[in-house]
Amino acid sequence: MIKDYTMARLPIIDDALDHFLSAETYPPQIYEAMRYSLFAGGKRLRPILLMAAADAVGQDGSRFINIACGLEMIHTYSLIHDDLPAMDNDDFRRGKLTNHKVFGDGIAVLAGDGLLTEAFGVMLAQPKVEPATLIKVIREIATAAGARGMVGGQTIDLLSEGKTIDSETLKFIHQAKTGALFTAAIRAGAMLANANEECLAALTEYAKQFGLAFQITDDILDVAGVEEKLGKPLGSDVKNNKVTYVSLYSLEEAKEMAKEAVRCAIAAISDLGVEAAVLRDYVLYLLNRDS
Amino acid sequence: MIKDYTMARLPIIDDALDHFLSAETYPPQIYEAMRYSLFAGGKRLRPILLMAAADAVGQDGSRFINIACGLEMIHTYSLIHDDLPAMDNDDFRRGKLTNHKVFGDGIAVLAGDGLLTEAFGVMLAQPKVEPATLIKVIREIATAAGARGMVGGQTIDLLSEGKTIDSETLKFIHQAKTGALFTAAIRAGAMLANANEECLAALTEYAKQFGLAFQITDDILDVAGVEEKLGKPLGSDVKNNKVTYVSLYSLEEAKEMAKEAVRCAIAAISDLGVEAAVLRDYVLYLLNRDS
Repeated sequence: MIKDYTMARLPIIDDALDHFLSAETYPPQIYEAMRYSLFAGGKRLRPILLMAAADAVGQDGSRFINIACGLEMIHTYSLIHDDLPAMDNDDFRRGKLTNHKVFGDGIAVLAGDGLLTEAFGVMLAQPKVEPATLIKVIREIATAAGARGMVGGQTIDLLSEGKTIDSETLKFIHQAKTGALFTAAIRAGAMLANANEECLAALTEYAKQFGLAFQITDDILDVAGVEEKLGKPLGSDVKNNKVTYVSLYSLEEAKEMAKEAVRCAIAAISDLGVEAAVLRDYVLYLLNRDS
Repeated sequence: MIKDYTMARLPIIDDALDHFLSAETYPPQIYEAMRYSLFAGGKRLRPILLMAAADAVGQDGSRFINIACGLEMIHTYSLIHDDLPAMDNDDFRRGKLTNHKVFGDGIAVLAGDGLLTEAFGVMLAQPKVEPATLIKVIREIATAAGARGMVGGQTIDLLSEGKTIDSETLKFIHQAKTGALFTAAIRAGAMLANANEECLAALTEYAKQFGLAFQITDDILDVAGVEEKLGKPLGSDVKNNKVTYVSLYSLEEAKEMAKEAVRCAIAAISDLGVEAAVLRDYVLYLLNRDS
């Protein structure tokens, strides 16, 4: 089911991204660098979660294509900067050379900056949404991506390399670094679709559990995945002395924690109807993903 | 006159920035790095231009403090990233160590990312402006700061180092790298103050000439300034093999071009009343600035 759902939406998202960041735009050098990472095989998980959340509230989520694409652009910028030598120093991502390995460190910094800035431009151009609602949604995304969210999580992650951190710090890193943007994507979909308070609260809880399950399974893949499917070398967390769910707990315990988060995610949206079936399938898929 | 005008507004801007990016926020490490550059002695030129433009249209420009601070945060992020070893590799700015020299390259990248993201969050929270107007203004700022604007200008600047470029390319670099954000600041002030079309067009032309005069005098300062006042070593453009107005033309020609731009800026707003006197003074000050 999520395969069909995803397959139907991927071309919509890719076409829109292609349109928003047209290769014909001047200066071409920065568009080439931004597009390289934007079209490097991302799963478009955040745009699809936004659409699925809006669908779950009974609207057509693909209407909110600008916000969906903005989320993907923010996610992509964060990957480019995270891969830099000054940060995680990764040469490969999704089986392809990282941005700075192709374009150089300076252009990679600028490609990230460009994607982040254009993301806000694209989101602000979202048509057919009440301006006050649009402002509220984009503010929430800015908070999730900002210094208390994604950037803050990456900061603590970077400063924690090679150090012993406790489970509370690990929780903050993951919640801020990846969880916050997942939550913003799902809440944005719900708010754009004018979800009521109860429904928004249910989807928010789903989002939190989704983010947790995503991070734990990510840590598991780094030690127990298949390198070819993952598109990057295994064990990069160990190499970078990173504390993960697998280093803090056993592999078996981590798997159990992931399952528990998935159970909680599904329970959170038990009152939503058949329109939320895709969200249920999505979080289940995390347990079996190979990339 | 501009001294009084500036002195009255600097504390308003600094207090607001201090409030928007409170040192008490978690995680403190990223706030410390962002605040280091934000409070490193910037002239707050963009916020003040925004306020002066709104004042010129007969409104109290200090009302638009969120947009004003957002512009300063965007400007500051761009300086942090421009100074990185992967870009201009500068150790000093405004007489102080650059961000990456104090906090390391990784945190400097993140401090820039944080400032850029938070800038949009702060601007979107601007009170007492009609939501549709607010969206329009912030979209224009995103375009000015984005891949066709500031980021695009820096891209071509970086790729042009050590190469011979023509005057058209130099013009694009400066217009995109610094001119676009000046124009956005002035137009934002005018639009927030509900300027009519004619007035907006006049201020837009003023802004273009202001940006040109700023860049030419910036290039002049790099060869003919006083190091202590400038707060950074002279001759950094020559060191980085940068084409500038002074390398492309003679020093005397560059000074003449700066004067001509100032004349055009003042002529552009000749129909505006006494409320625009500050803008006239500001562009004149560029000819005599020492930092």
